Amino acid sequence: MSEPIPIVGGTGALGAGLALRWAAAGVPIVIGSRSPERAEEAAASLRQAVPGAEVEGLRNEEAAKRGEVVFLTVPFRAQSENLGNLRGALRPGQILVDCTVPLAAAVSGKATRSLGVWQGSAAQQAQEMVPEGVTVVAALHSVGAPTLGDPAAELDEDVLICGDRKADKARVARLIELIEGLRPVNAGALEMARIVEQLTPLLISINSRYKTHAGIRLTGLPDGDHWE
Amino acid sequence: MSEPIPIVGGTGALGAGLALRWAAAGVPIVIGSRSPERAEEAAASLRQAVPGAEVEGLRNEEAAKRGEVVFLTVPFRAQSENLGNLRGALRPGQILVDCTVPLAAAVSGKATRSLGVWQGSAAQQAQEMVPEGVTVVAALHSVGAPTLGDPAAELDEDVLICGDRKADKARVARLIELIEGLRPVNAGALEMARIVEQLTPLLISINSRYKTHAGIRLTGLPDGDHWE
Repeated sequence: MSEPIPIVGGTGALGAGLALRWAAAGVPIVIGSRSPERAEEAAASLRQAVPGAEVEGLRNEEAAKRGEVVFLTVPFRAQSENLGNLRGALRPGQILVDCTVPLAAAVSGKATRSLGVWQGSAAQQAQEMVPEGVTVVAALHSVGAPTLGDPAAELDEDVLICGDRKADKARVARLIELIEGLRPVNAGALEMARIVEQLTPLLISINSRYKTHAGIRLTGLPDGDHWE
Repeated sequence: MSEPIPIVGGTGALGAGLALRWAAAGVPIVIGSRSPERAEEAAASLRQAVPGAEVEGLRNEEAAKRGEVVFLTVPFRAQSENLGNLRGALRPGQILVDCTVPLAAAVSGKATRSLGVWQGSAAQQAQEMVPEGVTVVAALHSVGAPTLGDPAAELDEDVLICGDRKADKARVARLIELIEGLRPVNAGALEMARIVEQLTPLLISINSRYKTHAGIRLTGLPDGDHWE
């Protein structure tokens, strides 16, 4: 594990939470932001929070060049713009992990409702927009940013991964299981992101009722490593 | 608990599974079917499986009159027809628990895909079709019929309940928690059925990959009785 993980939108709540968890696990990180100054600020504060953290802060386009598996953690409102900006940066063979959720909050609606995306899901929209040879995997929608970003919070939930090739999903799964308490689960083809992205507004609805940060856990899965 | 639970479509896999579990818990059941003969056959075989079970088999329309909380467990293909037939049977104050999932399998498509329902979800379609004063609650989509129908299988999962009034959802929750291993969770308004109904094709996709019957469990919910 010497190759860093680029996080496009790494100064947002989800990106920062992932960066914190991976840095704590000893994984090198590249935080991307629209502004290189904000990226470097976030990197500096992460180095302070996790002494010895290997972390850089760069403009999104530069960050995306630094690793084979790139995480896109921007809000839906900014997804298309970011994918447009990344067109010149991504290269064939890379995996883009889309974490976007098309919450109606993107257009000043409720966070318990979602928008219809023409392609069926934000992840499928991403697959249409990335350069040829880049594959999109969808993941991490149901992991709450507040929980992820709180080093005292214990994680105990599943991450549902969608993608069209098991090998690509497995590479993402290996990165996700570096974070203690997260179990990567193979949820099927990329089109299943239509459903998995909807878990977020569902959890937001449940969270508001139970005053908590709920996660998803599947029961009945066999033991052992599904990703081998 | 002396009032029986009517199960419309109670000879199908989900209905039969529910009938078995409730009968085993000592709850009186009325199995409904299009054919009163098939309903009575199913009731007789349930009495054999669960000695002492209080169970009747009736035509759907007759069954639906026997209790305040009626479960509708027919496949999506037959949902509208059944709701039409129930129009003269249901009366104000009753709760109809819709368990329908609009799988694409209803129109010979895949069970990992779903159909768009004009009203947003099968449950909302049901709400439009029931007589005035009958309220619809959506539940039980993610509990697998094979698991439910296998008396040797231990249940350990959540049932996500959607509806517009907490009091109605609570009545349904009290019936669901009579089945050991099922925890009723308040998933929000009836419109959230748009998402909860989608858990079924998601689980079917996961089941095919893991060769199992997975269920949903939410992590991070506070202990105690949410339904009081």
